[in-house]
Amino acid sequence: MSEPKRRPHVTTDTRRAEGFSDGVFAIIITLLVLDLEPPDVPSGQLRSTLLKQWPTYLAYVSSYLYIAVVWLNHKHAFLRIREMSRGLHSANLGVLFTTALLPFATAVLSKAVQGESLADARTGVALYALVGVLLCMSWLVFFHYLSRHPSLLAEGVSATFFAQETTRALLGVALYAAAGLLGHFVTPTVALVLFLALPAFYGVTSHGLDELAVLLRRR
Amino acid sequence: MSEPKRRPHVTTDTRRAEGFSDGVFAIIITLLVLDLEPPDVPSGQLRSTLLKQWPTYLAYVSSYLYIAVVWLNHKHAFLRIREMSRGLHSANLGVLFTTALLPFATAVLSKAVQGESLADARTGVALYALVGVLLCMSWLVFFHYLSRHPSLLAEGVSATFFAQETTRALLGVALYAAAGLLGHFVTPTVALVLFLALPAFYGVTSHGLDELAVLLRRR
Amino acid sequence: MSEPKRRPHVTTDTRRAEGFSDGVFAIIITLLVLDLEPPDVPSGQLRSTLLKQWPTYLAYVSSYLYIAVVWLNHKHAFLRIREMSRGLHSANLGVLFTTALLPFATAVLSKAVQGESLADARTGVALYALVGVLLCMSWLVFFHYLSRHPSLLAEGVSATFFAQETTRALLGVALYAAAGLLGHFVTPTVALVLFLALPAFYGVTSHGLDELAVLLRRR
Amino acid sequence: MSEPKRRPHVTTDTRRAEGFSDGVFAIIITLLVLDLEPPDVPSGQLRSTLLKQWPTYLAYVSSYLYIAVVWLNHKHAFLRIREMSRGLHSANLGVLFTTALLPFATAVLSKAVQGESLADARTGVALYALVGVLLCMSWLVFFHYLSRHPSLLAEGVSATFFAQETTRALLGVALYAAAGLLGHFVTPTVALVLFLALPAFYGVTSHGLDELAVLLRRR
Repeated sequence: MSEPKRRPHVTTDTRRAEGFSDGVFAIIITLLVLDLEPPDVPSGQLRSTLLKQWPTYLAYVSSYLYIAVVWLNHKHAFLRIREMSRGLHSANLGVLFTTALLPFATAVLSKAVQGESLADARTGVALYALVGVLLCMSWLVFFHYLSRHPSLLAEGVSATFFAQETTRALLGVALYAAAGLLGHFVTPTVALVLFLALPAFYGVTSHGLDELAVLLRRR
Repeated sequence: MSEPKRRPHVTTDTRRAEGFSDGVFAIIITLLVLDLEPPDVPSGQLRSTLLKQWPTYLAYVSSYLYIAVVWLNHKHAFLRIREMSRGLHSANLGVLFTTALLPFATAVLSKAVQGESLADARTGVALYALVGVLLCMSWLVFFHYLSRHPSLLAEGVSATFFAQETTRALLGVALYAAAGLLGHFVTPTVALVLFLALPAFYGVTSHGLDELAVLLRRR
Repeated sequence: MSEPKRRPHVTTDTRRAEGFSDGVFAIIITLLVLDLEPPDVPSGQLRSTLLKQWPTYLAYVSSYLYIAVVWLNHKHAFLRIREMSRGLHSANLGVLFTTALLPFATAVLSKAVQGESLADARTGVALYALVGVLLCMSWLVFFHYLSRHPSLLAEGVSATFFAQETTRALLGVALYAAAGLLGHFVTPTVALVLFLALPAFYGVTSHGLDELAVLLRRR
Repeated sequence: MSEPKRRPHVTTDTRRAEGFSDGVFAIIITLLVLDLEPPDVPSGQLRSTLLKQWPTYLAYVSSYLYIAVVWLNHKHAFLRIREMSRGLHSANLGVLFTTALLPFATAVLSKAVQGESLADARTGVALYALVGVLLCMSWLVFFHYLSRHPSLLAEGVSATFFAQETTRALLGVALYAAAGLLGHFVTPTVALVLFLALPAFYGVTSHGLDELAVLLRRR
């Protein structure tokens, strides 16, 4: 109330960045379903064809979990942001950009795995891992920027928080790179399991730590 | 005003969960229209082809009603929620996940029913019923979680409210399972009628009870 | 501030209805662009093919204008709404339902007009007019409901306002029906011109009257 | 608080225009990804096909940057707008309309460049430049309208600001026209480089000036 002119701009800024991001995340997570299409099958073979599509369903679940975790991370990060700057907008648009690549990587992967060529399956795994690495790197930039610009943070949030998040993002880069290398040079199946496990495990732990931080801060 | 630090976080939490969910629901309900495509027909046969597509239109209306009811339910549930927790976010993402499967199930069903194979029609019916069961189960989890965490509820809302909602969701699981079994083992037509009737009936009654509860609470 | 318990619910209600509707309108208006696809043409014939697609562009412009007018109408109606009821939610979902049919009707029409069959062009015109009639009818229901439930209106808004809007919606039903009949029984070209003119003319006049009403109310 | 009746309408107006625009921008920017589809390739040739698609990726990055810059511009313009009028709504819908054409132009361009025909590549370049020109012209109208209606601006924002923005939009019209002409009559490659450079350069400078203006205003 002491700065009536400044506050509205700030609020508007964060609000539109959040609203726009929510829109993009909502579309990305729903675009995944577009890959679930009624198959073109000879009469009478719908059931068996649907059952054979299980890699598509697995890819759908895996990517849904991934994007859900990204959204939760995004929400938790923005809870701690008071004001947007040009750099932070760019970093945020970078996160949205890499997240938007997930449905494409998911579609390529699920199609490649269902085909007969091992080379194609490896390519699909490598592409998905590459997008995973890029996504974690965009978070790395986002968190690093915040850790260097404490003036943008909400009251009571220390820059240390985002320094820790930077470490977590770095871990993600390493894990997706490892999954891609294992899947490409050893066997695609390993990568598929890791792709499903990573966001699930990540989501549970990160969110848990986060919750804890919020609880501690409230005291 | 007495807790300036706590309130903004809480509000932000519910606001973004609602905004993100609204985005997902808006996309899902509009994706249904994508199945309404101009048919590829020989010159001069557009009218007859459009008229023959009636199962597609019926499936569109039925699924639109269903998702509209889900959205209204969602809105009514969130009117009673004061604060989000990790578990509640997960339950909400579960509801969005199962709702997003509806356009796929709708497309498979309307295509299967228009085909000549009775086996395919049964598969389509079974898939749609399965998604209906999963959707009701996700609400079951959502309501059950709320009935166990009264601290997340808005002032004046008793946990009993969500205990009752749990029962309604359980009824939905049973009804969709029954529709699927009848449609699969007796005749698909029965299931189609039930799929159209269930959300309509459900929407009217549930919303009515809801309205009543709000009215009573306001006194 | 005198009714702390009642207001938040009311606000939340309108806010989510508006946010959800905005999402649906945004998707519908953008879905139109999906029909603008890079044509599959023999090498070297891209330019002539793009130029020949002019009916598609005209249909795109026409439907964009139409949906823009619907959105502006929606916004202006909700400026006068204080509280949502079950019936008003249903009426609003009806408006969204019929608006969502426009991209389908637009796609069928633009394809039919580009084809060689006069019968198909007539069918396309009739379908578009039918959707126009349905859309105006959904507004009719929406406005009629509001004129009968003045308790839902914002302070200072008289039920007479929505009674007048009802008349305008009725006029729309008649005009789209006339355009459809003329296009079907006389020549499709007449209908195309009317389809383009109706939302443009409608938007200008309705919005003008509306603006006037707001200005007068503010004095 | 001195004008309790007027403020809510104003706020609602800007809020819905912003929310609707955010929705449209979010969809447009995500629609671009739909062009990234898993290619249909003979078994074993996925990797080489994916690598050969580089013009598609370049077009995706370029258009993403463009739309991101448009969104940032939009956000910055609306920070300075206090109230919407009929004319401003129309100008805003014009901006959304032309922005929505970008994914189409992008798809045509990336496909044309990957083909063998030089004539097609020129057509694709000309179409993209045309959409760029139209987009800058819609901003021209938007900014010009604001510079003539200072009553719609937020407190402390001078109409001079938007007069300057008008000049920048005019520059954009000229630059896209030049890129189109160079690409069409000299070589498409020049245009591709310019299409990638223009939004990047534009975004950086415009946003920088903008930020500066905000900083100066805050003193």
